[in-house]
Amino acid sequence: MATGRSHRPATRSRGIPEATVARLPLYLRALTALSERSVPTVSSEELAAAAGVNSAKLRKDFSYLGSYGTRGVGYDVEYLVYQISRELGLTQDWPVVIVGIGNLGAALANYGGFASRGFRVAALLDADPALAGRLVAGLPVRHIDELESIVADNQVSIGVIATPAGAAQEVTDRLVAAGVTSILNFAPTVLTVPDGVDVRKVDLSIELQILAFHEQRKAGEDRQDPDGDVPAVMPA
Amino acid sequence: MATGRSHRPATRSRGIPEATVARLPLYLRALTALSERSVPTVSSEELAAAAGVNSAKLRKDFSYLGSYGTRGVGYDVEYLVYQISRELGLTQDWPVVIVGIGNLGAALANYGGFASRGFRVAALLDADPALAGRLVAGLPVRHIDELESIVADNQVSIGVIATPAGAAQEVTDRLVAAGVTSILNFAPTVLTVPDGVDVRKVDLSIELQILAFHEQRKAGEDRQDPDGDVPAVMPA
Repeated sequence: MATGRSHRPATRSRGIPEATVARLPLYLRALTALSERSVPTVSSEELAAAAGVNSAKLRKDFSYLGSYGTRGVGYDVEYLVYQISRELGLTQDWPVVIVGIGNLGAALANYGGFASRGFRVAALLDADPALAGRLVAGLPVRHIDELESIVADNQVSIGVIATPAGAAQEVTDRLVAAGVTSILNFAPTVLTVPDGVDVRKVDLSIELQILAFHEQRKAGEDRQDPDGDVPAVMPA
Repeated sequence: MATGRSHRPATRSRGIPEATVARLPLYLRALTALSERSVPTVSSEELAAAAGVNSAKLRKDFSYLGSYGTRGVGYDVEYLVYQISRELGLTQDWPVVIVGIGNLGAALANYGGFASRGFRVAALLDADPALAGRLVAGLPVRHIDELESIVADNQVSIGVIATPAGAAQEVTDRLVAAGVTSILNFAPTVLTVPDGVDVRKVDLSIELQILAFHEQRKAGEDRQDPDGDVPAVMPA
Protein backbone atom coordinates (compact mmCIF):
# COMPACT_ATOMS: atom_id res chain seq x y z
CA MET A 1 0.00 0.00 0.00
CA ALA A 2 1.08 3.59 -0.55
CA THR A 3 2.05 5.34 2.65
CA GLY A 4 2.96 8.84 3.73
CA ARG A 5 0.50 10.41 1.35
CA SER A 6 -0.61 13.08 3.80
CA HIS A 7 2.97 14.34 4.17
CA ARG A 8 3.21 15.35 0.54
CA PRO A 9 3.33 19.05 -0.28
CA ALA A 10 -0.09 20.63 -0.44
CA THR A 11 0.74 22.28 -3.77
CA ARG A 12 0.36 18.91 -5.43
CA SER A 13 -3.30 18.73 -4.55
CA ARG A 14 -3.95 20.90 -7.62
CA GLY A 15 -3.52 17.74 -9.67
CA ILE A 16 -1.05 16.33 -12.14
CA PRO A 17 -2.03 16.57 -15.80
CA GLU A 18 -2.37 13.22 -17.55
CA ALA A 19 0.21 14.34 -20.13
CA THR A 20 2.71 14.90 -17.30
CA VAL A 21 1.96 11.44 -15.89
CA ALA A 22 2.69 10.01 -19.34
CA ARG A 23 6.11 11.73 -19.41
CA LEU A 24 7.22 10.65 -15.91
CA PRO A 25 8.29 7.18 -17.15
CA LEU A 26 10.44 8.86 -19.84
CA TYR A 27 12.23 10.98 -17.22
CA LEU A 28 12.62 7.97 -14.98
CA ARG A 29 14.23 5.95 -17.76
CA ALA A 30 16.75 8.72 -18.48
CA LEU A 31 17.47 9.27 -14.76
CA THR A 32 18.00 5.56 -14.17
CA ALA A 33 20.62 5.55 -16.92
CA LEU A 34 22.40 8.48 -15.21
CA SER A 35 22.14 6.78 -11.82
CA GLU A 36 23.74 3.62 -13.23
CA ARG A 37 26.68 5.76 -14.38
CA SER A 38 26.85 7.32 -10.87
CA VAL A 39 26.12 10.81 -12.20
CA PRO A 40 25.11 12.85 -9.10
CA THR A 41 23.29 15.82 -10.65
CA VAL A 42 21.79 16.75 -14.00
CA SER A 43 20.64 20.02 -15.56
CA SER A 44 17.11 20.36 -16.89
CA GLU A 45 18.56 20.78 -20.41
CA GLU A 46 20.62 17.58 -20.23
CA LEU A 47 17.79 15.57 -18.76
CA ALA A 48 15.28 16.98 -21.24
CA ALA A 49 17.54 15.99 -24.14
CA ALA A 50 18.03 12.48 -22.74
CA ALA A 51 14.27 12.05 -22.28
CA GLY A 52 13.39 13.56 -25.65
CA VAL A 53 11.32 16.36 -24.09
CA ASN A 54 11.46 20.16 -24.27
CA SER A 55 13.30 21.53 -21.20
CA ALA A 56 10.64 24.12 -20.33
CA LYS A 57 8.04 21.33 -20.33
CA LEU A 58 10.31 19.25 -18.08
CA ARG A 59 10.62 22.07 -15.54
CA LYS A 60 6.85 22.54 -15.55
CA ASP A 61 6.32 18.80 -15.09
CA PHE A 62 8.74 18.67 -12.17
CA SER A 63 7.04 21.62 -10.51
CA TYR A 64 3.99 19.35 -10.07
CA LEU A 65 6.24 17.04 -8.03
CA GLY A 66 7.43 19.98 -5.94
CA SER A 67 10.90 19.51 -7.46
CA TYR A 68 12.63 22.67 -8.65
CA GLY A 69 16.35 21.76 -8.74
CA THR A 70 19.14 24.08 -7.61
CA ARG A 71 20.35 26.95 -9.80
CA GLY A 72 23.82 26.22 -11.21
CA VAL A 73 23.72 22.64 -9.89
CA GLY A 74 20.61 21.11 -11.39
CA TYR A 75 18.58 18.22 -10.07
CA ASP A 76 19.80 15.55 -7.65
CA VAL A 77 19.56 12.37 -9.72
CA GLU A 78 18.94 9.89 -6.89
CA TYR A 79 16.33 12.04 -5.21
CA LEU A 80 14.50 12.61 -8.47
CA VAL A 81 14.50 8.85 -9.21
CA TYR A 82 12.92 8.36 -5.78
CA GLN A 83 10.39 11.17 -6.22
CA ILE A 84 9.20 10.00 -9.64
CA SER A 85 9.14 6.34 -8.62
CA ARG A 86 7.05 7.22 -5.56
CA GLU A 87 4.73 9.38 -7.66
CA LEU A 88 4.19 6.59 -10.17
CA GLY A 89 3.61 4.06 -7.40
CA LEU A 90 6.72 2.07 -8.30
CA THR A 91 8.13 1.98 -4.78
CA GLN A 92 5.65 -0.78 -4.01
CA ASP A 93 5.40 -4.26 -5.48
CA TRP A 94 2.82 -4.78 -8.26
CA PRO A 95 2.00 -8.39 -8.96
CA VAL A 96 0.79 -8.81 -12.55
CA VAL A 97 -0.55 -11.77 -14.48
CA ILE A 98 0.14 -12.23 -18.18
CA VAL A 99 -2.62 -14.02 -20.07
CA GLY A 100 -1.80 -15.61 -23.43
CA ILE A 101 1.68 -17.14 -23.63
CA GLY A 102 2.34 -17.15 -27.35
CA ASN A 103 5.36 -15.36 -28.81
CA LEU A 104 4.25 -12.02 -27.41
CA GLY A 105 3.31 -13.28 -23.95
CA ALA A 106 6.64 -15.10 -23.71
CA ALA A 107 8.47 -11.95 -24.81
CA LEU A 108 6.64 -9.95 -22.13
CA ALA A 109 7.41 -12.58 -19.48
CA ASN A 110 11.10 -12.27 -20.36
CA TYR A 111 11.06 -8.48 -20.58
CA GLY A 112 13.51 -7.09 -18.02
CA GLY A 113 11.86 -3.69 -18.03
CA PHE A 114 8.93 -4.91 -15.93
CA ALA A 115 10.86 -6.32 -12.97
CA SER A 116 13.17 -3.32 -12.77
CA ARG A 117 10.12 -1.08 -12.30
CA GLY A 118 8.45 -2.94 -9.47
CA PHE A 119 6.24 -5.16 -11.61
CA ARG A 120 6.47 -8.78 -10.54
CA VAL A 121 5.06 -11.41 -12.87
CA ALA A 122 2.96 -13.46 -10.45
CA ALA A 123 1.72 -15.94 -13.04
CA LEU A 124 1.53 -16.80 -16.73
CA LEU A 125 -1.81 -18.10 -17.96
CA ASP A 126 -2.87 -19.76 -21.19
CA ALA A 127 -5.97 -21.57 -22.42
CA ASP A 128 -3.91 -24.26 -24.16
CA PRO A 129 -3.65 -27.32 -21.84
CA ALA A 130 -0.56 -28.43 -23.80
CA LEU A 131 1.33 -25.38 -22.52
CA ALA A 132 0.50 -25.98 -18.85
CA GLY A 133 3.60 -26.57 -16.78
CA ARG A 134 6.03 -25.41 -19.45
CA LEU A 135 8.63 -23.01 -18.05
CA VAL A 136 8.73 -19.53 -19.60
CA ALA A 137 11.11 -16.98 -18.06
CA GLY A 138 11.46 -19.37 -15.13
CA LEU A 139 7.73 -19.56 -14.41
CA PRO A 140 5.43 -22.49 -15.19
CA VAL A 141 2.55 -21.66 -17.52
CA ARG A 142 -0.75 -22.25 -15.71
CA HIS A 143 -4.12 -23.05 -17.19
CA ILE A 144 -6.64 -20.24 -17.56
CA ASP A 145 -9.00 -22.16 -15.26
CA GLU A 146 -6.76 -21.07 -12.38
CA LEU A 147 -7.21 -17.36 -13.20
CA GLU A 148 -9.63 -16.54 -10.37
CA SER A 149 -7.66 -18.31 -7.63
CA ILE A 150 -4.32 -16.87 -8.82
CA VAL A 151 -5.67 -13.30 -8.84
CA ALA A 152 -7.12 -13.74 -5.35
CA ASP A 153 -4.10 -15.52 -3.85
CA ASN A 154 -1.61 -12.97 -5.21
CA GLN A 155 -3.75 -9.84 -4.77
CA VAL A 156 -3.21 -9.09 -8.45
CA SER A 157 -4.60 -5.71 -9.53
CA ILE A 158 -2.98 -5.49 -12.99
CA GLY A 159 -3.58 -7.92 -15.84
CA VAL A 160 -1.66 -8.02 -19.12
CA ILE A 161 -3.58 -9.39 -22.10
CA ALA A 162 -1.51 -10.99 -24.87
CA THR A 163 -4.21 -13.32 -26.21
CA PRO A 164 -5.64 -13.31 -29.74
CA ALA A 165 -8.25 -10.58 -30.29
CA GLY A 166 -11.16 -13.03 -30.09
CA ALA A 167 -10.33 -14.12 -26.54
CA ALA A 168 -9.45 -10.74 -25.07
CA GLN A 169 -12.88 -9.55 -23.92
CA GLU A 170 -13.74 -12.81 -22.15
CA VAL A 171 -10.37 -12.83 -20.39
CA THR A 172 -10.89 -9.19 -19.41
CA ASP A 173 -14.33 -9.93 -17.97
CA ARG A 174 -12.90 -12.77 -15.89
CA LEU A 175 -9.97 -10.66 -14.66
CA VAL A 176 -12.29 -7.81 -13.68
CA ALA A 177 -14.74 -10.17 -11.94
CA ALA A 178 -11.79 -11.61 -10.01
CA GLY A 179 -10.79 -8.14 -8.79
CA VAL A 180 -8.29 -6.79 -11.34
CA THR A 181 -8.72 -3.02 -11.80
CA SER A 182 -6.07 -2.23 -14.47
CA ILE A 183 -5.67 -3.91 -17.84
CA LEU A 184 -2.75 -3.55 -20.22
CA ASN A 185 -4.09 -4.73 -23.56
CA PHE A 186 -1.80 -5.98 -26.34
CA ALA A 187 -4.62 -7.69 -28.23
CA PRO A 188 -5.77 -5.89 -31.40
CA THR A 189 -9.27 -5.12 -30.13
CA VAL A 190 -11.13 -2.54 -28.05
CA LEU A 191 -12.11 -3.80 -24.60
CA THR A 192 -15.20 -2.83 -22.64
CA VAL A 193 -14.76 -2.50 -18.88
CA PRO A 194 -16.88 -1.12 -16.03
CA ASP A 195 -16.23 2.28 -14.43
CA GLY A 196 -13.28 2.22 -12.10
CA VAL A 197 -11.24 -0.12 -14.29
CA ASP A 198 -8.41 1.41 -16.34
CA VAL A 199 -7.41 -0.02 -19.70
CA ARG A 200 -4.33 1.01 -21.64
CA LYS A 201 -3.85 -0.36 -25.10
CA VAL A 202 -0.54 -1.08 -26.76
CA ASP A 203 -0.63 -1.31 -30.55
CA LEU A 204 2.82 -2.25 -31.76
CA SER A 205 2.11 -0.88 -35.25
CA ILE A 206 1.21 2.65 -34.17
CA GLU A 207 4.77 3.86 -33.82
CA LEU A 208 5.56 2.33 -37.22
CA GLN A 209 2.67 4.27 -38.75
CA ILE A 210 4.09 7.51 -37.35
CA LEU A 211 7.49 6.63 -38.84
CA ALA A 212 5.82 5.93 -42.18
CA PHE A 213 4.26 9.40 -42.09
CA HIS A 214 7.71 10.95 -41.73
CA GLU A 215 9.27 8.64 -44.32
CA GLN A 216 6.64 9.75 -46.81
CA ARG A 217 7.44 13.38 -46.00
CA LYS A 218 11.16 12.75 -46.47
CA ALA A 219 10.47 11.08 -49.84
CA GLY A 220 8.41 14.12 -50.80
CA GLU A 221 11.22 16.50 -49.87
CA ASP A 222 13.65 14.51 -51.98
CA ARG A 223 11.34 15.02 -54.91
CA GLN A 224 11.56 18.81 -54.40
CA ASP A 225 7.89 19.38 -54.99
CA PRO A 226 7.77 22.56 -57.11
CA ASP A 227 4.42 23.68 -55.72
CA GLY A 228 5.80 23.81 -52.20
CA ASP A 229 2.54 22.55 -50.77
CA VAL A 230 3.95 19.60 -48.86
CA PRO A 231 2.61 19.99 -45.34
CA ALA A 232 5.35 20.62 -42.84
CA VAL A 233 5.10 18.91 -39.47
CA MET A 234 5.01 21.24 -36.53
CA PRO A 235 6.47 20.19 -33.20
CA ALA A 236 3.75 19.08 -30.78
CA MET B 1 6.61 6.45 -53.84
CA ALA B 2 3.88 8.85 -52.82
CA THR B 3 2.00 10.31 -55.75
CA GLY B 4 -0.57 13.01 -56.33
CA ARG B 5 0.88 15.21 -53.65
CA SER B 6 0.37 18.40 -55.62
CA HIS B 7 -3.36 17.75 -55.84
CA ARG B 8 -3.83 17.93 -52.09
CA PRO B 9 -5.73 20.90 -50.68
CA ALA B 10 -3.56 23.96 -50.20
CA THR B 11 -4.93 24.46 -46.69
CA ARG B 12 -2.85 21.50 -45.58
CA SER B 13 0.35 23.37 -46.31
CA ARG B 14 -0.09 25.01 -42.91
CA GLY B 15 1.17 21.78 -41.43
CA ILE B 16 -0.18 18.93 -39.36
CA PRO B 17 0.70 19.06 -35.66
CA GLU B 18 2.76 16.13 -34.44
CA ALA B 19 0.08 15.35 -31.84
CA THR B 20 -2.48 14.99 -34.65
CA VAL B 21 -0.14 12.66 -36.54
CA ALA B 22 0.10 10.53 -33.39
CA ARG B 23 -3.72 10.24 -33.21
CA LEU B 24 -4.26 9.32 -36.87
CA PRO B 25 -3.38 5.63 -36.23
CA LEU B 26 -5.96 5.55 -33.42
CA TYR B 27 -8.70 6.84 -35.73
CA LEU B 28 -7.59 4.44 -38.43
CA ARG B 29 -7.84 1.47 -36.07
CA ALA B 30 -11.38 2.43 -35.04
CA LEU B 31 -12.44 3.11 -38.64
CA THR B 32 -11.03 -0.22 -39.82
CA ALA B 33 -13.16 -1.99 -37.21
CA LEU B 34 -16.27 -0.15 -38.53
CA SER B 35 -15.32 -0.94 -42.13
CA GLU B 36 -15.02 -4.64 -41.28
CA ARG B 37 -18.58 -4.50 -39.93
CA SER B 38 -19.69 -2.73 -43.17
CA VAL B 39 -20.78 0.40 -41.27
CA PRO B 40 -21.08 3.12 -43.99
CA THR B 41 -20.95 6.33 -41.91
CA VAL B 42 -20.00 7.37 -38.41
CA SER B 43 -20.61 10.48 -36.32
CA SER B 44 -17.68 12.35 -34.81
CA GLU B 45 -18.97 11.43 -31.34
CA GLU B 46 -19.13 7.70 -32.08
CA LEU B 47 -15.74 7.66 -33.73
CA ALA B 48 -14.19 9.76 -30.95
CA ALA B 49 -15.51 7.33 -28.34
CA ALA B 50 -14.20 4.32 -30.28
CA ALA B 51 -10.76 5.93 -30.65
CA GLY B 52 -10.64 7.15 -27.06
CA VAL B 53 -10.36 10.81 -28.07
CA ASN B 54 -12.38 13.93 -27.33
CA SER B 55 -14.80 14.63 -30.22
CA ALA B 56 -13.86 18.30 -30.57
CA LYS B 57 -10.21 17.25 -30.89
CA LEU B 58 -11.21 14.70 -33.52
CA ARG B 59 -13.03 17.31 -35.61
CA LYS B 60 -10.01 19.62 -35.36
CA ASP B 61 -7.67 16.80 -36.38
CA PHE B 62 -9.82 15.89 -39.39
CA SER B 63 -9.92 19.52 -40.49
CA TYR B 64 -6.17 19.22 -41.17
CA LEU B 65 -7.01 16.45 -43.61
CA GLY B 66 -9.63 18.66 -45.27
CA SER B 67 -12.31 16.25 -44.00
CA TYR B 68 -15.37 17.84 -42.42
CA GLY B 69 -18.09 15.18 -42.62
CA THR B 70 -21.72 15.90 -43.48
CA ARG B 71 -24.13 17.37 -40.94
CA GLY B 72 -26.69 14.79 -39.81
CA VAL B 73 -24.83 12.01 -41.66
CA GLY B 74 -21.31 12.06 -40.28
CA TYR B 75 -18.15 10.84 -41.94
CA ASP B 76 -17.96 8.33 -44.78
CA VAL B 77 -16.04 5.43 -43.21
CA GLU B 78 -14.36 4.09 -46.37
CA TYR B 79 -13.30 7.49 -47.60
CA LEU B 80 -11.86 8.41 -44.22
CA VAL B 81 -9.91 5.11 -44.09
CA TYR B 82 -8.45 6.03 -47.47
CA GLN B 83 -7.69 9.63 -46.49
CA ILE B 84 -5.92 8.71 -43.26
CA SER B 85 -4.04 5.81 -44.82
CA ARG B 86 -2.83 8.08 -47.59
CA GLU B 87 -1.85 10.77 -45.11
CA LEU B 88 0.15 8.29 -43.05
CA GLY B 89 1.82 6.88 -46.14
CA LEU B 90 0.21 3.46 -45.70
CA THR B 91 -1.11 3.22 -49.25
CA GLN B 92 2.38 2.26 -50.33
CA ASP B 93 4.44 -0.80 -49.40
CA TRP B 94 7.04 -0.33 -46.64
CA PRO B 95 9.63 -3.08 -46.47
CA VAL B 96 11.03 -3.37 -42.94
CA VAL B 97 13.78 -5.49 -41.42
CA ILE B 98 13.58 -6.82 -37.88
CA VAL B 99 16.95 -7.21 -36.17
CA GLY B 100 17.20 -9.50 -33.13
CA ILE B 101 15.01 -12.60 -33.35
CA GLY B 102 14.60 -13.52 -29.69
CA ASN B 103 11.15 -13.79 -28.13
CA LEU B 104 10.33 -10.18 -28.93
CA GLY B 105 11.64 -10.22 -32.50
CA ALA B 106 9.70 -13.43 -33.16
CA ALA B 107 6.56 -11.87 -31.67
CA LEU B 108 6.99 -8.82 -33.91
CA ALA B 109 7.57 -11.03 -36.98
CA ASN B 110 4.27 -12.78 -36.23
CA TYR B 111 2.38 -9.60 -35.42
CA GLY B 112 -0.55 -9.29 -37.83
CA GLY B 113 -0.86 -5.56 -37.22
CA PHE B 114 2.19 -4.77 -39.35
CA ALA B 115 1.13 -6.46 -42.57
CA SER B 116 -2.40 -5.08 -42.41
CA ARG B 117 -0.95 -1.55 -42.40
CA GLY B 118 1.33 -1.84 -45.40
CA PHE B 119 4.45 -2.93 -43.52
CA ARG B 120 6.06 -5.95 -45.16
CA VAL B 121 8.71 -7.80 -43.21
CA ALA B 122 11.46 -8.07 -45.82
CA ALA B 123 13.90 -9.95 -43.61
CA LEU B 124 14.65 -11.16 -40.08
CA LEU B 125 18.26 -10.75 -38.93
CA ASP B 126 20.14 -12.12 -35.95
CA ALA B 127 23.78 -12.26 -34.89
CA ASP B 128 23.46 -15.86 -33.68
CA PRO B 129 24.69 -18.21 -36.45
CA ALA B 130 22.69 -21.03 -34.83
CA LEU B 131 19.45 -19.21 -35.71
CA ALA B 132 20.32 -18.73 -39.38
CA GLY B 133 17.88 -20.49 -41.66
CA ARG B 134 15.31 -21.17 -38.94
CA LEU B 135 11.79 -20.25 -40.08
CA VAL B 136 9.97 -17.59 -38.00
CA ALA B 137 6.59 -16.41 -39.24
CA GLY B 138 7.38 -18.16 -42.51
CA LEU B 139 10.65 -16.30 -43.09
CA PRO B 140 14.15 -17.72 -42.67
CA VAL B 141 16.30 -15.91 -40.10
CA ARG B 142 19.36 -14.45 -41.84
CA HIS B 143 22.74 -13.63 -40.36
CA ILE B 144 23.48 -10.02 -39.43
CA ASP B 145 26.41 -10.08 -41.90
CA GLU B 146 23.80 -9.85 -44.67
CA LEU B 147 22.32 -6.60 -43.27
CA GLU B 148 23.86 -4.24 -45.82
CA SER B 149 22.96 -6.31 -48.88
CA ILE B 150 19.41 -6.98 -47.63
CA VAL B 151 18.74 -3.27 -47.00
CA ALA B 152 20.06 -2.36 -50.45
CA ASP B 153 18.32 -5.18 -52.35
CA ASN B 154 14.93 -4.50 -50.72
CA GLN B 155 15.14 -0.71 -50.55
CA VAL B 156 14.44 -0.91 -46.83
CA SER B 157 13.96 2.48 -45.19
CA ILE B 158 12.60 1.30 -41.81
CA GLY B 159 14.49 -0.90 -39.35
CA VAL B 160 13.01 -2.48 -36.22
CA ILE B 161 15.49 -3.12 -33.40
CA ALA B 162 14.64 -5.97 -31.03
CA THR B 163 18.21 -6.76 -29.92
CA PRO B 164 19.57 -6.59 -26.37
CA ALA B 165 20.45 -3.04 -25.29
CA GLY B 166 24.18 -3.59 -25.73
CA ALA B 167 23.88 -4.38 -29.44
CA ALA B 168 21.33 -1.74 -30.41
CA GLN B 169 23.63 1.21 -31.21
CA GLU B 170 25.96 -0.83 -33.41
CA VAL B 171 23.01 -2.29 -35.30
CA THR B 172 21.55 1.19 -35.68
CA ASP B 173 24.83 2.55 -37.07
CA ARG B 174 24.96 -0.25 -39.62
CA LEU B 175 21.31 0.23 -40.65
CA VAL B 176 21.82 3.99 -41.07
CA ALA B 177 25.06 3.52 -43.03
CA ALA B 178 23.17 1.10 -45.30
CA GLY B 179 20.48 3.71 -46.00
CA VAL B 180 17.76 3.17 -43.40
CA THR B 181 16.22 6.50 -42.32
CA SER B 182 13.64 5.39 -39.71
CA ILE B 183 14.30 3.23 -36.66
CA LEU B 184 11.71 1.67 -34.38
CA ASN B 185 13.61 0.84 -31.21
CA PHE B 186 12.39 -1.82 -28.76
CA ALA B 187 15.77 -2.13 -27.02
CA PRO B 188 15.96 -0.50 -23.57
CA THR B 189 18.51 2.13 -24.54
CA VAL B 190 18.70 5.59 -26.11
CA LEU B 191 20.06 5.57 -29.66
CA THR B 192 22.15 8.27 -31.31
CA VAL B 193 21.42 8.91 -34.99
CA PRO B 194 22.43 11.60 -37.49
CA ASP B 195 20.07 14.39 -38.56
CA GLY B 196 17.46 13.20 -41.02
CA VAL B 197 17.00 9.84 -39.32
CA ASP B 198 13.87 9.37 -37.19
CA VAL B 199 13.88 7.13 -34.14
CA ARG B 200 10.79 6.11 -32.20
CA LYS B 201 11.23 4.15 -29.02
CA VAL B 202 8.83 1.60 -27.65
CA ASP B 203 9.20 0.83 -23.95
CA LEU B 204 6.77 -1.92 -23.05
CA SER B 205 6.83 -0.95 -19.37
CA ILE B 206 5.76 2.67 -19.84
CA GLU B 207 2.07 1.93 -20.15
CA LEU B 208 2.32 -0.30 -17.06
CA GLN B 209 3.87 2.56 -15.13
CA ILE B 210 0.96 4.80 -16.07
CA LEU B 211 -1.46 2.11 -14.87
CA ALA B 212 0.49 1.85 -11.60
CA PHE B 213 0.04 5.59 -11.10
CA HIS B 214 -3.73 5.20 -11.38
CA GLU B 215 -3.77 2.06 -9.23
CA GLN B 216 -1.97 3.95 -6.50
CA ARG B 217 -4.54 6.74 -6.77
CA LYS B 218 -7.40 4.24 -6.56
CA ALA B 219 -5.82 2.67 -3.46
CA GLY B 220 -5.55 6.15 -1.96
CA GLU B 221 -9.22 6.89 -2.63
CA ASP B 222 -10.21 3.63 -0.98
CA ARG B 223 -8.33 4.74 2.11
CA GLN B 224 -10.47 7.94 2.16
CA ASP B 225 -7.56 10.20 2.99
CA PRO B 226 -9.04 12.66 5.54
CA ASP B 227 -6.74 15.52 4.50
CA GLY B 228 -8.11 15.44 0.99
CA ASP B 229 -4.72 16.28 -0.46
CA VAL B 230 -4.51 13.38 -2.86
CA PRO B 231 -3.69 14.91 -6.23
CA ALA B 232 -6.48 14.43 -8.72
CA VAL B 233 -5.59 13.61 -12.29
CA MET B 234 -6.79 16.12 -14.83
CA PRO B 235 -7.64 15.04 -18.35
CA ALA B 236 -4.83 15.79 -20.80
